Amino acid sequence: MKGVFITFEGSEGSGKSTQAALIYKYLKEKSRPALHIREPGGVKISEAVRRILLDVRNSQMTKECETLLYMAARAQLVEEKVLPALKQGMVVLCDRFLDSTVAYQGYGNGVDINFIKDIGRMVTQGTVPDLTFLFDIETEKGLERTGQNKDRIELRSLNYHNRVRKGYLKLAQEEPGRIKVIKVNKSKEEIHALVKKDVDALLGW
Amino acid sequence: MKGVFITFEGSEGSGKSTQAALIYKYLKEKSRPALHIREPGGVKISEAVRRILLDVRNSQMTKECETLLYMAARAQLVEEKVLPALKQGMVVLCDRFLDSTVAYQGYGNGVDINFIKDIGRMVTQGTVPDLTFLFDIETEKGLERTGQNKDRIELRSLNYHNRVRKGYLKLAQEEPGRIKVIKVNKSKEEIHALVKKDVDALLGW
Repeated sequence: MKGVFITFEGSEGSGKSTQAALIYKYLKEKSRPALHIREPGGVKISEAVRRILLDVRNSQMTKECETLLYMAARAQLVEEKVLPALKQGMVVLCDRFLDSTVAYQGYGNGVDINFIKDIGRMVTQGTVPDLTFLFDIETEKGLERTGQNKDRIELRSLNYHNRVRKGYLKLAQEEPGRIKVIKVNKSKEEIHALVKKDVDALLGW
Repeated sequence: MKGVFITFEGSEGSGKSTQAALIYKYLKEKSRPALHIREPGGVKISEAVRRILLDVRNSQMTKECETLLYMAARAQLVEEKVLPALKQGMVVLCDRFLDSTVAYQGYGNGVDINFIKDIGRMVTQGTVPDLTFLFDIETEKGLERTGQNKDRIELRSLNYHNRVRKGYLKLAQEEPGRIKVIKVNKSKEEIHALVKKDVDALLGW
């Protein structure tokens, strides 16, 4: 079996984590070896970086520091988990990946996009997802769904999150073959059915 | 008064931290406003990154992750401390800076040197030290001086530390105007006298 890499992207409250979990459950039921990880995090060093990134007390963090911390966490995750799992022929489901940094730190925060992509190529060792789901939700509606205990990124302004959403949609326009946009205006079950259909197609089921 | 930026570089056990502290004391005695910081660290976010970097349990850390964590810590330190202090006309004494990443992660660990320099330009916002002291000591002798409780970097092989030392000397050859090599084969006091002489000249004393 060939390894398959699928990423789940979207702005806050888009339901991407729920959908990744549902697909993981589906693959397990079909006995397809799969790995479900999240960014930033997924391995010990990257989870330690995650705690710094999401800590609301770190409000002074510069946009360059933030970008490089996400990239550092990604470098470690790719080497320790993503590449070994792909080599073993697993389906790797990743909740956020490089597109998140382009959308949040690039389009959202004004860090140079080409620079992000250059560093991205190094830290991913050239690994590009076979398929990326972009769950697109109206910004205000998504932020409402994140609830009370917001992290450092979720706490940012509506304008910021609108830029992130637009950045994501721009990425999807640039890479329509890889990035599949799913509008979040249906039930969780209906969206899962759409995602499952594309995953089935990708796996040749 | 114009801000002045002086960095202290060198491999393990070279005495650079001691010399930076002696110069800080000297400047204080002369009532020259000065800031003494160390890398990685110096501000809250960067100190949190430092703990991840030097933790001996993080032996699995990839060279790319390590490089980006050093750079993230630097970005935060430059923005929060170095640039404001320089704007106020202070003498900023920094124990390690970008040259350390070129020497340790580049020459020592094989990360692309041009890539390190590119990221370096971003995180330093183009800030280059006015003067850099490179304390050069025979590798084995330096490692002996670091004592029993070695951190994750100090624990690396003699070959690694030899590559770091050679990398530093190469940097000094490339930028003889900025980087002043001081051979560590004299007493602490004699070395301080040499450092003080260059600092005096730089400050026009």
